[in-house]
Amino acid sequence: MTRNSEPMPLNSPEMSGQVMDTHDDAMPERTAPSRSWSWERAGLRRLLAILGNPPIRFRLWDGHTEESHGVVPIATVEFTSRASLLRLLLQQTIAFGDEYARGRIRVDGDLVGALTAIVAATHIKAKSTGYKWLTTIVRRPPRFNSVPSSRRHIHHHYDIGNDFYRLWLDREMQYTCAYFPKFDLSIEQAQQEKMHHVCRKLQLKPGDRVVEAGCGWGSLARFMASHYGANVTAYNISKEQIKFATECAAREGLSDQVTYVEDDYRNIDGEFDVFVSVGMLEHVGVRNYQNLGEVIVKCLRPGGRGLIHAIGRNKRRTLNAWIERRIFPGAYPPTLRQMMNIFEPVDLAVLDVENLRMHYAKTTEYWLQRFDRAESDVAEMFDEQFVRAWRLYLSGSIAAFRGGSLQLFQVVFAHGADNNVPWTRQHIYS
Amino acid sequence: MTRNSEPMPLNSPEMSGQVMDTHDDAMPERTAPSRSWSWERAGLRRLLAILGNPPIRFRLWDGHTEESHGVVPIATVEFTSRASLLRLLLQQTIAFGDEYARGRIRVDGDLVGALTAIVAATHIKAKSTGYKWLTTIVRRPPRFNSVPSSRRHIHHHYDIGNDFYRLWLDREMQYTCAYFPKFDLSIEQAQQEKMHHVCRKLQLKPGDRVVEAGCGWGSLARFMASHYGANVTAYNISKEQIKFATECAAREGLSDQVTYVEDDYRNIDGEFDVFVSVGMLEHVGVRNYQNLGEVIVKCLRPGGRGLIHAIGRNKRRTLNAWIERRIFPGAYPPTLRQMMNIFEPVDLAVLDVENLRMHYAKTTEYWLQRFDRAESDVAEMFDEQFVRAWRLYLSGSIAAFRGGSLQLFQVVFAHGADNNVPWTRQHIYS
Repeated sequence: MTRNSEPMPLNSPEMSGQVMDTHDDAMPERTAPSRSWSWERAGLRRLLAILGNPPIRFRLWDGHTEESHGVVPIATVEFTSRASLLRLLLQQTIAFGDEYARGRIRVDGDLVGALTAIVAATHIKAKSTGYKWLTTIVRRPPRFNSVPSSRRHIHHHYDIGNDFYRLWLDREMQYTCAYFPKFDLSIEQAQQEKMHHVCRKLQLKPGDRVVEAGCGWGSLARFMASHYGANVTAYNISKEQIKFATECAAREGLSDQVTYVEDDYRNIDGEFDVFVSVGMLEHVGVRNYQNLGEVIVKCLRPGGRGLIHAIGRNKRRTLNAWIERRIFPGAYPPTLRQMMNIFEPVDLAVLDVENLRMHYAKTTEYWLQRFDRAESDVAEMFDEQFVRAWRLYLSGSIAAFRGGSLQLFQVVFAHGADNNVPWTRQHIYS
Repeated sequence: MTRNSEPMPLNSPEMSGQVMDTHDDAMPERTAPSRSWSWERAGLRRLLAILGNPPIRFRLWDGHTEESHGVVPIATVEFTSRASLLRLLLQQTIAFGDEYARGRIRVDGDLVGALTAIVAATHIKAKSTGYKWLTTIVRRPPRFNSVPSSRRHIHHHYDIGNDFYRLWLDREMQYTCAYFPKFDLSIEQAQQEKMHHVCRKLQLKPGDRVVEAGCGWGSLARFMASHYGANVTAYNISKEQIKFATECAAREGLSDQVTYVEDDYRNIDGEFDVFVSVGMLEHVGVRNYQNLGEVIVKCLRPGGRGLIHAIGRNKRRTLNAWIERRIFPGAYPPTLRQMMNIFEPVDLAVLDVENLRMHYAKTTEYWLQRFDRAESDVAEMFDEQFVRAWRLYLSGSIAAFRGGSLQLFQVVFAHGADNNVPWTRQHIYS
């Protein structure tokens, strides 16, 4: 459970076929459970210690409880059977997510608060030698995202149904960090503000030729066209998203200005004034960063501007094992140091970096709120297991951004020899 | 001459004793020079090609000229003797600086323009395999700055006389990049704006305990005290600067709020609300970055804020050989990637990075202007050789910042788990 500082493992049910075979479903879930053994209790105490003694209570199937000393528990994690506990102790994050989604591990109390407390506790704990040793042995290198495997990974997450995402995202279907210049904005307003923030950073103006790498449901491309008069070519390898985006552009009369291309960013062709990528880098994979840099310098004209917006880390660490396996296959949030592999080899100048971590915490809070309100619709569309898995994923994301385990970086850049760069950043704020 | 993209090599006369022994002063400088040989001319043509064919003309002692094809020369580099040419071809940047300072290599025309053109040409040229090979074989790892060697290096540059620096810096003696929110500010105004910019980024408020690492002549510490009501402890290993700074603080009635400590940043002691360092990192050395990070996390209280302001690079490259040898021993401008070695190992969160390269180009233009106006005073204080060396150094700095060979990064950071970070960057601009 402590592979990294995000403790929420997840289970996306459409993948659960791949999960089940790792579980021993022949285990006697329904026989009357025996009393817990002393080594099981000791295992839980050890787990609490490894997690840095967060304010959590564990309750076993026989009513026995274990909790951190000297702190008031804010949630109780309940194991309905010996099998669930064994899986957790053996498989940690992966088991936690799967068993939670199946309803065999239950959390009573404040789920987000409990996860946030665990992130905070492991943050402190992460400095200890034991924790470092543990995370080292369970760490795997991130997967390599070839063109075909990228397609498979993106299909897995983004093509599970536009109707599902419509239930809890903003009306423009933006599945990336919003920007709240004022704290009390709605998510709709904050997503609009995010797009303005990006366009201002890029000093976007009418007639600018923009290439977008990884356009999601295409809202930014349409926004750049309708609000700033730009001409945008937007790449994405999700079939469903491209279809949705193209229909939206037609409906809004933007087909002349916006072209959606179902293709990999590695196949971007042509010359552009602006390169922009919001929320794609997480899926690129560190081994492809230099390649991405080469794509950028090739397609960005001299004097052009670029922006990359991506989830990142302060310290190098793989994504939570279960999010990577069940929710976002192939995903990896890089450190700034790793991101520099995009820019440094090709002499791109980094002009501006902004960390919007707290904005992503707030964004994911809105998403969870809406998701919870749409619970019955989601359950009808999928099932209860799906609901629990996604609740855990969204709650865990809030915890990770709140607790400082994940960051959100916006990086503005230009060619190294260009002098027509913004003189100050005043234009972003006036 | 092409060890990296800054072509200006320098000679600080107080070090020239160390230089002379590398020169063969027995060479017949005063005998009537013979005609130039064909291999000497070929060497110059090769040099132009290596430099990327900048708009430069070379003139030899016998009147023979070589220049880049297809470009109008903006300056003529004249070799007064065969010895100077041989030294240049053998020792490149080092010879250029020394010979220029001694008056044996002369530049007719626009010195800054010519150097800028060379930086621009090598910028393009740098992408070629031949240039990469050349820079690889002449590249040395940066020196290691131990506590005693740091003292020696800092003494070398900063202790050559406050009266000298007073001739061409602003009245507050700020020897770092100024900030020009409006383009037409004076250097005095822009240095004040820089200090405000730093204080706003740090959200400085009355009573804040600030530690400054590398305080120069102490202006920022006094400014933070007098304009923001902060209490500042400022470290510096330059004896002359500490003496000057302490006297200024006493004269301005700030002795209660500002303490100058003649000691190394590695010996910073105590707990502070704010860590700030403006223009010191260049002297720290990459091998000490992790150590600097440890110093910062140790002295910065939870919830504290930090800022590092430093010259940097887009691509990894050692400092121009002659600046490193004659002007700034031990200095090295890091890439952002290298700077991350300060923050990443100790889980400091990078909140904001701003690149102020063009502001440093403008700052150094002001310095050169003032330096040129004070030429006769400088010559009286030192000699003509010193004047030429410093003119070359300042001109080369303008060229390096204009041409994109050097950057200026301001990095704002906080502890990784802190959530009371600024919500937006609006406060910097309102």
